Amino acid sequence: MILVIDVGNSRIKAAVFEDNILLEIFIFTKIELEKKIENILKKFQKTTDLVVSSVGDVEKESFLGFNNLVKVNFISHTDLFPFQNKYSTPQTLGIDRMVLASGAVLSFPNQNRLVIDAGTCVTYDFITQDNEYLGGAISPGFRLRYESLNNYTAKLPLLSLENPSDLIGNSTSTSIHSGVVNGLVNEIDGFIADYSARYSNFIIILTGGDTDFLAKRLKNTIFANSNFLLESLNQTFQYKIKND
Amino acid sequence: MILVIDVGNSRIKAAVFEDNILLEIFIFTKIELEKKIENILKKFQKTTDLVVSSVGDVEKESFLGFNNLVKVNFISHTDLFPFQNKYSTPQTLGIDRMVLASGAVLSFPNQNRLVIDAGTCVTYDFITQDNEYLGGAISPGFRLRYESLNNYTAKLPLLSLENPSDLIGNSTSTSIHSGVVNGLVNEIDGFIADYSARYSNFIIILTGGDTDFLAKRLKNTIFANSNFLLESLNQTFQYKIKND
Repeated sequence: MILVIDVGNSRIKAAVFEDNILLEIFIFTKIELEKKIENILKKFQKTTDLVVSSVGDVEKESFLGFNNLVKVNFISHTDLFPFQNKYSTPQTLGIDRMVLASGAVLSFPNQNRLVIDAGTCVTYDFITQDNEYLGGAISPGFRLRYESLNNYTAKLPLLSLENPSDLIGNSTSTSIHSGVVNGLVNEIDGFIADYSARYSNFIIILTGGDTDFLAKRLKNTIFANSNFLLESLNQTFQYKIKND
Repeated sequence: MILVIDVGNSRIKAAVFEDNILLEIFIFTKIELEKKIENILKKFQKTTDLVVSSVGDVEKESFLGFNNLVKVNFISHTDLFPFQNKYSTPQTLGIDRMVLASGAVLSFPNQNRLVIDAGTCVTYDFITQDNEYLGGAISPGFRLRYESLNNYTAKLPLLSLENPSDLIGNSTSTSIHSGVVNGLVNEIDGFIADYSARYSNFIIILTGGDTDFLAKRLKNTIFANSNFLLESLNQTFQYKIKND
């Protein structure tokens, strides 16, 4: 069994896999990290490997303490990936984006793939049918948009994600919900249209914490899977073991 | 002569008008406020009225000190406006949005109007051809998007507004520029498409600090005027004087 851990900007997601079967998912904060891993390893005693991908500010030492129980693997830029990296600054490419690209290539062979990860940030990653990773875009996710409106203005309140009742907000709250939600939906629909105009034969994969909220609001047919990063982490690790 | 002052979230814009002729524009910060007004009034000694619209956190007292030289007028929710306000929470409607709606009605009679003000925030305001103000949306502007990506993540840098070279960013910087710039352009194009699908006979007015940057990137034909809020302030004041 393999325990994969995705350290994001605002939370940590973990999952236990037996081959390609996802057995259980865990979501927790940085403070809870070591206690949670300890509990997971107690529950899944057949775990042999811990596989970590991190874009957050968690120290490696937090994981290395488990070295006596399991092998601790950090996914890094120098690992073997199933695509050719055309990014001009590969060292600053977020490791989560590399894992997503890897999962897209392994799960959806022989087609162009646009991966949209909607979490703290929204990342767009494009991998051609010839398995060349080209790059993409990064924009603020829902929470960042709500928080920035409150933080940088004198009079706007802090709101949580809510479906706007209409295109036209008729109060301060509904105006903000329309601007943030319809705004991001428009942004994603626009990016998909721009990629569609340039490439054919392609699949759109939507993942991240806001997958379910977004999936039903987008114009295009997409493959929505909120666990795609966890599954990609497992696949990337399996790929590395087989090919290293 | 009239000195109009627009106190925004991040800066102050002022302009001197003689009837409907804009004589000069001034942009400054809150700290410089009183010194700047003093200088403007010295230069334009025929100024009779100071007209203030504020969504920022500047005290009224900063303006009232000039009461011995000119009449100080604060545009407020209780003023006379040339539209019927259908907002469900009229007391929390930003006074800048009311002034923009007022300017749209006075400058573009007998048509539906969508006013987009792209500054610290992007505000969308819709006023029907029957002069009913319905509301709109509020989303983060360029600077808020760039700052939030840096503030809420562990590894993303703080960048300034820059035109993305391509849809697909092939570095962390170009990915962020694509996400922020193409993202907001997609958002605005999407909102315009949604309003167009619902209403005919309408004009789109684009204003705010990012007018010039955005105008050439939008798909639709728009009326772009970065001074529209200042001109609307002058018009709203003239309208009030004539009709009160």
